[in-house]
Amino acid sequence: MSKNKRTAFFISDGTGITAGSLGGLLAHFPDTEFDQIRLPFIDSESKVEDAQKRIANAKMLGGVRPIVIMSIGNNKLRKELKAVDAYYVDLFEAFINPLGLEIKEDPLTRPGVSHSMTGNNYGPRMEAINFALGHDDGITHSGLNQAQVILVGVSRSGKTPTSVYLAMQFGIKAANYPLIPEDFSRGTLPPILEGYLDKIFGLTIKPERLHSLRSERRPDSKYASLANCREEVGLAEDLMKRLSIPMAESTSRSVEELSAIIIQNINKL
Amino acid sequence: MSKNKRTAFFISDGTGITAGSLGGLLAHFPDTEFDQIRLPFIDSESKVEDAQKRIANAKMLGGVRPIVIMSIGNNKLRKELKAVDAYYVDLFEAFINPLGLEIKEDPLTRPGVSHSMTGNNYGPRMEAINFALGHDDGITHSGLNQAQVILVGVSRSGKTPTSVYLAMQFGIKAANYPLIPEDFSRGTLPPILEGYLDKIFGLTIKPERLHSLRSERRPDSKYASLANCREEVGLAEDLMKRLSIPMAESTSRSVEELSAIIIQNINKL
Repeated sequence: MSKNKRTAFFISDGTGITAGSLGGLLAHFPDTEFDQIRLPFIDSESKVEDAQKRIANAKMLGGVRPIVIMSIGNNKLRKELKAVDAYYVDLFEAFINPLGLEIKEDPLTRPGVSHSMTGNNYGPRMEAINFALGHDDGITHSGLNQAQVILVGVSRSGKTPTSVYLAMQFGIKAANYPLIPEDFSRGTLPPILEGYLDKIFGLTIKPERLHSLRSERRPDSKYASLANCREEVGLAEDLMKRLSIPMAESTSRSVEELSAIIIQNINKL
Repeated sequence: MSKNKRTAFFISDGTGITAGSLGGLLAHFPDTEFDQIRLPFIDSESKVEDAQKRIANAKMLGGVRPIVIMSIGNNKLRKELKAVDAYYVDLFEAFINPLGLEIKEDPLTRPGVSHSMTGNNYGPRMEAINFALGHDDGITHSGLNQAQVILVGVSRSGKTPTSVYLAMQFGIKAANYPLIPEDFSRGTLPPILEGYLDKIFGLTIKPERLHSLRSERRPDSKYASLANCREEVGLAEDLMKRLSIPMAESTSRSVEELSAIIIQNINKL
């Protein structure tokens, strides 16, 4: 069956990040292929007119009205935009204004409120990114005491993107540290980590998937061989179980899913 | 004036990322302090009951009903959750189900659809993160031809977090390359970049802000001195202007704002 097609616009007077994040909800409709178009910084009449032309054009080309997910604070611009035919999800009308009535506060309507430097936990998030990159793959031991979580696992088990995501999205300081054959023959964690057992979270992965990931990087190496991947994963899991380190498998989980699991675990500590 | 307080729950049967991203909209209410609580993976009756207890408890402690932003696909669990008093923003009722009527497709209602490995441009995003980290700060020249954008600017102008954000959020492959005093005395870009002029985007920054950022890293150094920051920024801007490299200032812009500007610029190429 060929898929249905729709154009989905994300239109905002700011970055369009909030409106765009609702794009995740389109995944609930797998039989429709959405052509996603982001139009940020739509904060003047002439830009609204340009956006209208693009909406009208998409309708003409597609034969169906486009979906428009919009976050524009200015009342006049908002009404103007909606003068062309489309299916509108207006975040001000649907969420922000009703929420304002509930909490008895008038919302700010100037552009770019949601993702400026002043909102949204910005400073801590940037600090956490620097921390994650500065403590990637065990490159430094200094400052580990500041980490909120230390991810461990064999090479290519997903530690780096998960650390970066925890930092970027939540401002969580995550270090990560590889488990390597030396650790397995010693049968303990890297010595530097021994004082931090309560912050350690393990990532593991199916050997077949690890073999495939490592083969992309170093094809036909011992490092990437299925036999070696099986051995490393087995030894790493044994070590983590023995030390009661909480663990999640990255084989079929996205970094978003892994991060949500890790955060629940941090909250338990 | 002391701020009003409200508890805001983000409840989801998956990661809670989509529901949580609406948290950005709370920035429109600066006079209210939101205590934000994320409850992911609420996918069973017993978990719904736990969530209800937390909502009821927050209402009792706060004296006002909490805000609950929720994305739960299962009809029965959704209704059950809403049995306790709160202000609900139900993404299925408000957004997903009406959109399904518009596009004539029944939505998937199983948990965790939005941010699994199969949706949301996942593979390209992870590949782009590896690319950004592998091409951070000019550490390698190989593969620069794969970059969709190459950020340049003086040390600490914001290149790294912006590259990582472009990758994580949009799957855009962004390399970044520092402009250093050697480049200024030669008066040209680093030679390796000369073939890629059409992909280059410059970040600049106010010298005072740069001085403050660099002082955190290396206090009282020549590198961090205001005089040196002024000189480097001046020379970098001259170079970029001379080569007609598009440029944005990072001083008062978040990585989200910078990324939105850069993407508009990529689209123009």
